[in-house]
Amino acid sequence: MNIGIGVIGVGVMGADHVNTISTAISGAEVRAVFDIDPSRAARVASSVPGAKPLSSAQSLIEEFEVDALLIASNDATHAQYVLSAIAAGKPVLCEKPLAPTVAECEKILCAEQMAGLRMVQVGFMRRFDPGYVEMQRRLVSGIIGRPMLAHCSHRNADVPSGWTSEMTVLGSAVHEIDVMPWLFGKKVIGVNWMAPSSAITAKFRDPQVLVLELEAGALVICELFVKCGYGYEIRCEIVGEKGTIELAPLASVRVRSDFKMQTDFASDWRGRFAEAYRRELQSWVNGVIRWRSSKEQTEFGPVNGPDAWDGYCGAVVSEAVLRSMAYSGRMGVAFQPLPELYRKCRDALAYA
Amino acid sequence: MNIGIGVIGVGVMGADHVNTISTAISGAEVRAVFDIDPSRAARVASSVPGAKPLSSAQSLIEEFEVDALLIASNDATHAQYVLSAIAAGKPVLCEKPLAPTVAECEKILCAEQMAGLRMVQVGFMRRFDPGYVEMQRRLVSGIIGRPMLAHCSHRNADVPSGWTSEMTVLGSAVHEIDVMPWLFGKKVIGVNWMAPSSAITAKFRDPQVLVLELEAGALVICELFVKCGYGYEIRCEIVGEKGTIELAPLASVRVRSDFKMQTDFASDWRGRFAEAYRRELQSWVNGVIRWRSSKEQTEFGPVNGPDAWDGYCGAVVSEAVLRSMAYSGRMGVAFQPLPELYRKCRDALAYA
Amino acid sequence: MNIGIGVIGVGVMGADHVNTISTAISGAEVRAVFDIDPSRAARVASSVPGAKPLSSAQSLIEEFEVDALLIASNDATHAQYVLSAIAAGKPVLCEKPLAPTVAECEKILCAEQMAGLRMVQVGFMRRFDPGYVEMQRRLVSGIIGRPMLAHCSHRNADVPSGWTSEMTVLGSAVHEIDVMPWLFGKKVIGVNWMAPSSAITAKFRDPQVLVLELEAGALVICELFVKCGYGYEIRCEIVGEKGTIELAPLASVRVRSDFKMQTDFASDWRGRFAEAYRRELQSWVNGVIRWRSSKEQTEFGPVNGPDAWDGYCGAVVSEAVLRSMAYSGRMGVAFQPLPELYRKCRDALAYA
Amino acid sequence: MNIGIGVIGVGVMGADHVNTISTAISGAEVRAVFDIDPSRAARVASSVPGAKPLSSAQSLIEEFEVDALLIASNDATHAQYVLSAIAAGKPVLCEKPLAPTVAECEKILCAEQMAGLRMVQVGFMRRFDPGYVEMQRRLVSGIIGRPMLAHCSHRNADVPSGWTSEMTVLGSAVHEIDVMPWLFGKKVIGVNWMAPSSAITAKFRDPQVLVLELEAGALVICELFVKCGYGYEIRCEIVGEKGTIELAPLASVRVRSDFKMQTDFASDWRGRFAEAYRRELQSWVNGVIRWRSSKEQTEFGPVNGPDAWDGYCGAVVSEAVLRSMAYSGRMGVAFQPLPELYRKCRDALAYA
Repeated sequence: MNIGIGVIGVGVMGADHVNTISTAISGAEVRAVFDIDPSRAARVASSVPGAKPLSSAQSLIEEFEVDALLIASNDATHAQYVLSAIAAGKPVLCEKPLAPTVAECEKILCAEQMAGLRMVQVGFMRRFDPGYVEMQRRLVSGIIGRPMLAHCSHRNADVPSGWTSEMTVLGSAVHEIDVMPWLFGKKVIGVNWMAPSSAITAKFRDPQVLVLELEAGALVICELFVKCGYGYEIRCEIVGEKGTIELAPLASVRVRSDFKMQTDFASDWRGRFAEAYRRELQSWVNGVIRWRSSKEQTEFGPVNGPDAWDGYCGAVVSEAVLRSMAYSGRMGVAFQPLPELYRKCRDALAYA
Repeated sequence: MNIGIGVIGVGVMGADHVNTISTAISGAEVRAVFDIDPSRAARVASSVPGAKPLSSAQSLIEEFEVDALLIASNDATHAQYVLSAIAAGKPVLCEKPLAPTVAECEKILCAEQMAGLRMVQVGFMRRFDPGYVEMQRRLVSGIIGRPMLAHCSHRNADVPSGWTSEMTVLGSAVHEIDVMPWLFGKKVIGVNWMAPSSAITAKFRDPQVLVLELEAGALVICELFVKCGYGYEIRCEIVGEKGTIELAPLASVRVRSDFKMQTDFASDWRGRFAEAYRRELQSWVNGVIRWRSSKEQTEFGPVNGPDAWDGYCGAVVSEAVLRSMAYSGRMGVAFQPLPELYRKCRDALAYA
Repeated sequence: MNIGIGVIGVGVMGADHVNTISTAISGAEVRAVFDIDPSRAARVASSVPGAKPLSSAQSLIEEFEVDALLIASNDATHAQYVLSAIAAGKPVLCEKPLAPTVAECEKILCAEQMAGLRMVQVGFMRRFDPGYVEMQRRLVSGIIGRPMLAHCSHRNADVPSGWTSEMTVLGSAVHEIDVMPWLFGKKVIGVNWMAPSSAITAKFRDPQVLVLELEAGALVICELFVKCGYGYEIRCEIVGEKGTIELAPLASVRVRSDFKMQTDFASDWRGRFAEAYRRELQSWVNGVIRWRSSKEQTEFGPVNGPDAWDGYCGAVVSEAVLRSMAYSGRMGVAFQPLPELYRKCRDALAYA
Repeated sequence: MNIGIGVIGVGVMGADHVNTISTAISGAEVRAVFDIDPSRAARVASSVPGAKPLSSAQSLIEEFEVDALLIASNDATHAQYVLSAIAAGKPVLCEKPLAPTVAECEKILCAEQMAGLRMVQVGFMRRFDPGYVEMQRRLVSGIIGRPMLAHCSHRNADVPSGWTSEMTVLGSAVHEIDVMPWLFGKKVIGVNWMAPSSAITAKFRDPQVLVLELEAGALVICELFVKCGYGYEIRCEIVGEKGTIELAPLASVRVRSDFKMQTDFASDWRGRFAEAYRRELQSWVNGVIRWRSSKEQTEFGPVNGPDAWDGYCGAVVSEAVLRSMAYSGRMGVAFQPLPELYRKCRDALAYA
């Protein structure tokens, strides 16, 4: 018996999730869809047998046939929907960022702690990407010794007009801000922002360079370049005492023609991370199914991936980056103490 | 509402399919399992909620909850199970080869023609591999002009003891025998077999070299090396008038250590073609669902990939290769005329 | 004190050699130049301080200031100039092929044996290419076990009009015909020629496929494609019992632009093998200098690379290929017994 | 007629240069050698026909048969030998750094200006490396638009005991400090030094990260890691408005074995930059020959590559890096005004 998913927000990302759930995920089906644009909701719902459009997010959250919620609406609306879902006792997968501000993320942490269990998974899909997963496996194997340094490049071919430097941080860099500490097994303790000064426009500097300082002093240097022009590309190399591990280029074929050997880049993140999104969704669905059928796992909740605490950490670091951008220089990063709920789950996973 | 799958044969390949259907396929669930070894059937069934072991293949084929059949038993048993499934009116996905002899394949073609529709899909999963699919897309785009030549390497790290030269052809080369004519859009008209003479043992020569001659004279040169020692690797380059297309190496990470840059090979075909198997199964399930729900598509049946005619062609060419191996020199290849049932479906697909 | 070089034939290849000797070789200088086109000889000579054009090949061979000869004239003239040089007692580097026919090569072998020492080096420059040299080193190290099979691709972007199938064999394939037996340490014992039948014009078939059968049964499969359109590329992979060694792609930079990662191919052999030509010339010059200054090495002569026997072997195999092309099917290859002069030098080198 | 070279300092680097001049350079020969260790001088001299060891650097500088000087002695001695050579009117190729301090470099600039011509070329060999040269060619072609950012990794497998952070800057980073402004066509205006804090020992931090700020605001991020353990590797990617250019990996062969595809790294800089050193030496020799034979070029002197001003710039930036290392934070970089002598030559070259 499949679980029923309700999707809030079916723009590019949400519609992609609806399609993936409906064509490539075991154990789940989309049953309801809401979007601020009713015609878009109707169109997406009509593409899926058994799915209906609903006229409000709240009615979707409360819908009897909806067992779990996927939130892919505008960032500014994330927190309110997540909080409603927690109140309704329904598991949530919320696209990143969990919320644009630390304050909103803290409200979500409070709500989960009052509920006594984790209900919210955050859409940091890179943790499911086969490349990053393999990097982590190799790191843990010790093949490069202790990691000390990392180089990341995060390049988008283009962004919509009206884009700002802050959007690059909150929407793009937040992936590196999440995945690099996860790979190193270390928290961020400081950040430093730089940019080529030739790249100044009033509100949009591109490329940017972000240095993350991790516990024990490791440095992560991130290039963020969202109008790089040539394609979508994510690179990452971790440098350890004895060697390095890097993401290999992804291309299924090589073409020789016109005096060149050529491989193609993805045009955007959906092509590059299609498999990561599929695994993220399947993992989340598996977690929800397991939670619903198994009483003894109740205390950890339905989460099967990055949780609200990870979302909060992303927001704290992102805010520090924006301060470094505004005022220049290194900014320290401080998190609230890890609440018992999240500590307990991390301890349990470390034993697993 | 998911369709119910019954699986005949749950050795390495069948168990892998059971796992994929249960964890990564939308719209289907495994409901019954049969294996010649009852304890193996019981073990695999117990790993899937809702699946039960059955005591005979026939009872599984007739089982009310089983809507469609997946056959992954010993090659010699394929034909009888496929014929029973056709008789029972249930769609089949049969692992390659469809059957080890041309005669058996012809019986299946007859049975489908008498039934008036295609019920059998054959497990030539490479047609679903992202690399081969992309090669085909590029070929059709015309980027390299008319294809004239191809180089293939098919390398397994190792094979079980007791392996024979014939098994390399029927079990390994049959993939190239299927996929290369599909890529070129041309039938095989002749074959020629060679092997380094240093590689002689009584019954097992390795590596082998197979030359396929296609309509219009294109040549496909295949190295088959099933004890290559270093890993599982599939290579393919198609040479056209203006350039070439080749499968790119697959590796998710690169490691620098010990004065070397290293990428890993898969240890066997399951790692290399995991995504192809997933897409093959999803495509087949989609075809079965569409067929069951849509009256007007009845004449094409539930097949959504290579069909029994493709399986028959593979058997015809494989037999010619075995003749070239036994008697040396080029052997011509002749197929029976394409029956109306299969021609009609191919015409329809060409319009699609 | 530099040795003086006389160059016969200063078309594309000869002019390239003159330039290399004058700008990148230690211990030698070009002192005289002859070409069937006197204006070309004059032009090339004027580009090198101290070089003069001469009006006949014979006068150049006899010129007092010319210590050694480089022959890069039309293939059909090679034998006569080489024989004159031997008669004059001057070392020769002769571009490949040593001569277009076996009969001419045999005359050269006779002349050297009568002279009692090797005077002639043949321009099989691949033996000096860093890639092939490294392949040989790895083979000898045993890293892939016994070699059994090889795949070669020899692709030119284009050839002049009037090109024929035979020219591909004598001018292009001869490089594989020389270097592959050298890598395997085995003689050719049979050849088999094939071509896509779609590639027929009256006199020029392209691509061609050539199978060389080596002693102990190893097979070398060579694609020869001289109007491949996309660039100049030489590929080679040797397959052994435990692994393979292949030439790595050569490109100094990678460019990302227009949704592609790109590396460039050389436009012709001069770019691809510039370093091999430089090393070939330096090695030959070193051999000549050593020979002139060292009495005890007299019996081996000034040769410091492939010799006339290697040139003869190339001609024997090439003729067999032309027979296979003309009459179809496998052709055996037989060489005359290795004369004492060449055997002695090979033995001495094997001890070195 | 070859020019005669005298070499001061024949340790690892100097002996390598002696060998290259004697075996692979046109137009020059080593005639005298000095080393602080007389037995080393004698040993190296004995390996080259016609070369003699001399008992003092000054006698070598004054030696009649020595036309030009190559200085590869201890860094601290560079300035005095260079000044003596200028006084003697003999061209110099001085290994990098020109001198360890800005003050010494300024003395050399003065001496050249008083002499009225450039006599000193500095051994920044990367400007002759085929990869960097090709990067520059592509940059100038405009294929990536205006360059804005660069990522460099400079990794040595190991360094001798007693190595210090300063030695990494003066001996290793100085290559990036020279070649990156050359590629961008922009001067350094600021530097910023960082290091993973986990990498602290009393005097040797490794890896280090160096940020160079160029005119017009471009940023160059350099990782310097001299005990990286896995091999010698130099990487460089320049990021422009429309794409990027990066050095391609250098390896002549690829080996498949043990479930891995492998390419080798060089063990040290000599293997990696052998061709750059050869071209550097040939270019310098060509410059010296041209200068000696051509009166009208006298004002530019014999220099045919980076000159003393480039050496001075390297020293100025290196000192700023050491200040940033000692005191933390960004340090501005200021050069003295470009003297007329050097400006004039640069203008002339820009027209060439």
